[in-house]
Amino acid sequence: MEETAATAAVLLIGDELLSGRTQDCNLAYLGQRLAARGIRLAEARVVSDEEEEIVAAVRALSGRYTYVFTTGGIGPTHDDITAAAIARAFGRRLLADPVAEERLKKYYGADALSAPRLKMATVPEGSALIDNRVSSAPGFRLGNVFVLAGVPVIMQAMFESLQDQLQDGAPIRSRSVTAPLGESRLAEGLADIQRRYPDVGIGSYPFVRASRVAVSIVLRGTDEARLDGAATEVAALMQTLGIAEADIERN
Amino acid sequence: MEETAATAAVLLIGDELLSGRTQDCNLAYLGQRLAARGIRLAEARVVSDEEEEIVAAVRALSGRYTYVFTTGGIGPTHDDITAAAIARAFGRRLLADPVAEERLKKYYGADALSAPRLKMATVPEGSALIDNRVSSAPGFRLGNVFVLAGVPVIMQAMFESLQDQLQDGAPIRSRSVTAPLGESRLAEGLADIQRRYPDVGIGSYPFVRASRVAVSIVLRGTDEARLDGAATEVAALMQTLGIAEADIERN
Repeated sequence: MEETAATAAVLLIGDELLSGRTQDCNLAYLGQRLAARGIRLAEARVVSDEEEEIVAAVRALSGRYTYVFTTGGIGPTHDDITAAAIARAFGRRLLADPVAEERLKKYYGADALSAPRLKMATVPEGSALIDNRVSSAPGFRLGNVFVLAGVPVIMQAMFESLQDQLQDGAPIRSRSVTAPLGESRLAEGLADIQRRYPDVGIGSYPFVRASRVAVSIVLRGTDEARLDGAATEVAALMQTLGIAEADIERN
Repeated sequence: MEETAATAAVLLIGDELLSGRTQDCNLAYLGQRLAARGIRLAEARVVSDEEEEIVAAVRALSGRYTYVFTTGGIGPTHDDITAAAIARAFGRRLLADPVAEERLKKYYGADALSAPRLKMATVPEGSALIDNRVSSAPGFRLGNVFVLAGVPVIMQAMFESLQDQLQDGAPIRSRSVTAPLGESRLAEGLADIQRRYPDVGIGSYPFVRASRVAVSIVLRGTDEARLDGAATEVAALMQTLGIAEADIERN
């Protein structure tokens, strides 16, 4: 696929994702929403709640991609260490942010600002706050790193509040062509289409439906006409294999 | 948490995971199954279908952890490049494996062994095949890297066939204690319990149920008595905050 201007990485932070206790759904959400803005999500990592792991991953990803989005570890408990790790990754001090404190005071009440709650107003020096319309405790941005909550509904609200901070590119669109065929029967024709459409990313995703093998061919790129051209060729290829009319789904 | 003998990393390979088209569920499965065998899943990465990306990630993870499990990219189509990438990562040639060819011949019929299907019998020199009881095309093991399918039902069958190739450790068990409390109210007591139980990993996971905030405290470790001790203390802490009887769930 043609390289778009902006790239991104996602860093999912939390033991619960690696133990299998929690099924992540933040990665798929961010992948879809970034593609819609023309930002290619190039890599993701999942690390445990260990400061050295977070520091190393943030440094590696921040140097390599336009944007890094982290999720998780910004709550009030002892296992929430993301802010400290980001501060260390960039050699910054952790500071109490008065605006964040004000928001927490409004949410919890002035008398109820305990030390754990105040911890959620502590961010690396030089950070810009990211709004949390759900439960007030903010995320923050430092350089090209956006630090978001792990709870999906909060993460999503935070991400959506960032829209004007992210560079726009041509949205990455897709077409899907699905048929009850084994993918190996399509492989040679598909490779030929891929050669002639180097600007379109073509993926083949087999699945089983009602005990029958089937495949979705997914085409991704920024040029709608080229996508339609390649998708039409995939449908025609399926027709040569006995599929009367393959549906082309546009996304 | 106490370091167990064996560690693992998971490398999920596929554009569809980064575009948000496909919701991964292989990571959670592997995390759970590895923990049950006493192998700590320490890190996961998601990379696109690009050879350099796969090579770099495999090398980094293989050098750092006892085991690496990859998923995806071992089918017959042009975007299936995992075997080539693993071969390059370890400086091996790709060879047609006669045993794998025999299995594919049995599955598809001798007359139907097209080039794309034969590609699924091509593995790096020195690999050991991993059985695929679902659709015959094997995975393979090279050194400490286990190369599995991306389709969950096939990935799971492949992983389960490996049992006697993986070093056994003390199974990682867990306890969960859940209550309708905001986690910030527990934070200080919880940090105290964590200090006194350094061999137990204690995580705090807030969620919203029926519009009310709640939290699950999850305790993980290999010593059942220590887990029970810490979990009982968490339940007692919750009692001081007005929760009459917090249920302790054993896993």
